[in-house]
Amino acid sequence: MGGGRLKIGVVAPASRMSADVAARVPAVAERLFPDRTPEIVFHPQCFASHGHFAGDDDTRARAFLDVANDESYDAVWFARGGYGSCRMAEAVIGGLTDASRRKTYLGYSDAGALLAALYRAGFAAVAHGPVAQDILRDGGEAAVGRALTWMVDRAPAALEPTANGATKTAAFNMTVLSQLLGTPLQPDLAGHVLMLEEVSEAMYRIDRALFHITSNAEIRRVAGIMLGRCSAITPNDPEFGMNEEEVAQHWCRKSGIPWLGRADIGHDADNKIVPFGSYAPNALVT
Amino acid sequence: MGGGRLKIGVVAPASRMSADVAARVPAVAERLFPDRTPEIVFHPQCFASHGHFAGDDDTRARAFLDVANDESYDAVWFARGGYGSCRMAEAVIGGLTDASRRKTYLGYSDAGALLAALYRAGFAAVAHGPVAQDILRDGGEAAVGRALTWMVDRAPAALEPTANGATKTAAFNMTVLSQLLGTPLQPDLAGHVLMLEEVSEAMYRIDRALFHITSNAEIRRVAGIMLGRCSAITPNDPEFGMNEEEVAQHWCRKSGIPWLGRADIGHDADNKIVPFGSYAPNALVT
Repeated sequence: MGGGRLKIGVVAPASRMSADVAARVPAVAERLFPDRTPEIVFHPQCFASHGHFAGDDDTRARAFLDVANDESYDAVWFARGGYGSCRMAEAVIGGLTDASRRKTYLGYSDAGALLAALYRAGFAAVAHGPVAQDILRDGGEAAVGRALTWMVDRAPAALEPTANGATKTAAFNMTVLSQLLGTPLQPDLAGHVLMLEEVSEAMYRIDRALFHITSNAEIRRVAGIMLGRCSAITPNDPEFGMNEEEVAQHWCRKSGIPWLGRADIGHDADNKIVPFGSYAPNALVT
Repeated sequence: MGGGRLKIGVVAPASRMSADVAARVPAVAERLFPDRTPEIVFHPQCFASHGHFAGDDDTRARAFLDVANDESYDAVWFARGGYGSCRMAEAVIGGLTDASRRKTYLGYSDAGALLAALYRAGFAAVAHGPVAQDILRDGGEAAVGRALTWMVDRAPAALEPTANGATKTAAFNMTVLSQLLGTPLQPDLAGHVLMLEEVSEAMYRIDRALFHITSNAEIRRVAGIMLGRCSAITPNDPEFGMNEEEVAQHWCRKSGIPWLGRADIGHDADNKIVPFGSYAPNALVT
């Protein structure tokens, strides 16, 4: 990057991206940064299709590596979540070169499998935050703008308030983290404030995922848990009897993990940026 | 037991049991065993209610221990699945006495959390098979009859064909096993044929659960995986592109776990019995 235009590569390790996204996101970048508009390159793989996925596992892994290993890119931005990152994370980790370490990585939801793998591999600039396809949400321009100001300027206003550099942080969709526990992708979160959000799950599943996460001996070494938003919770039959905050507090009590309150993250346009690890606010990556 | 009537205690560690079950199950027992009808005692806790659960966590744990630790009972039979066993498994394991080791335990689905915990604790007669509330299914009398002939006589016809004593076996609902991985409830399944079934999940969730299970280093020590029935699969958007057998074969290939074909288990009336461990066909427990 070095004073020039930032170059951002968008890839889709999970589900296929909508074509609208590629049309709308660059306009936000131009409006926010008229004098130094970042170049946003949507890898053709974003539009590929293979059953559930944006191309088969090899195609998605190769696209990720195309961008991550290319010196000309400054950031790898996830097109969207959906499902599929866990299927190709191992191939990605096995194929990364030194150039990939000098980049920002930004995404959430299903992308958590790759964020975890990259963080575990010692990458310094991995963050949980909006994806390109968030442009399609109500208020999505704010979400995409937040992602861009993070990638371009490390803007403090983009950050979840607790992620201010005073403590190590990490954030995940709780189901996605649950499905990494006990696998080679599970990250070491000792001493981290762990933020967890959820979408479109029944309350008994939120309870079960939190049982799973808080019962893991390595997870019990976190500094504490903060609960992000749990949105579009599906009906529970019968009524569960506790809300998501009561459930999270229950599992914190049972596990001895400190309960640290609510986090400003979720599957919505307000989703703030959570850098993985001990982010130093004034340090740019390159 | 010793030649007299077998005494079976029914408890509900997860969701509340329907009152119909207590009316209908004893009639099946009388018809099958007119001369030595097993005594089936439904613990009052089966009908308790606390939000999602058949009583709160303490109530459900105490009921389980009431029966498990009572010398007069020969078997602990799960009323049904649902959700909740993981919430009280730790309290159960901490409260079991010697009397509990001389009993048969039978259930499936959510009960897998307790079956895993009991098996891990060295219990000899833990099995995956029909619950009392299966009486409400079409063909449910056959399922309940199978459970009874197993508990009373260890009838070979009740067994899943691979579970013939020639190899160690175990069986789980795949989501339930997934949610135990990396917790103190995860059982040691090295050398076991592991049978997995599922119900009411989308194909991408089946795929994700099998990623999770087959990526676990301890699970990779199983002798192989057999796939039970995956029923009432919910719509996948878009079409996933593989069926459950192709998905299971994919993850076996990726993980190096031998694929051993289909198992005769599932969330249905045909669900056969799978003892945990190396069951000796001619050995009765007591």
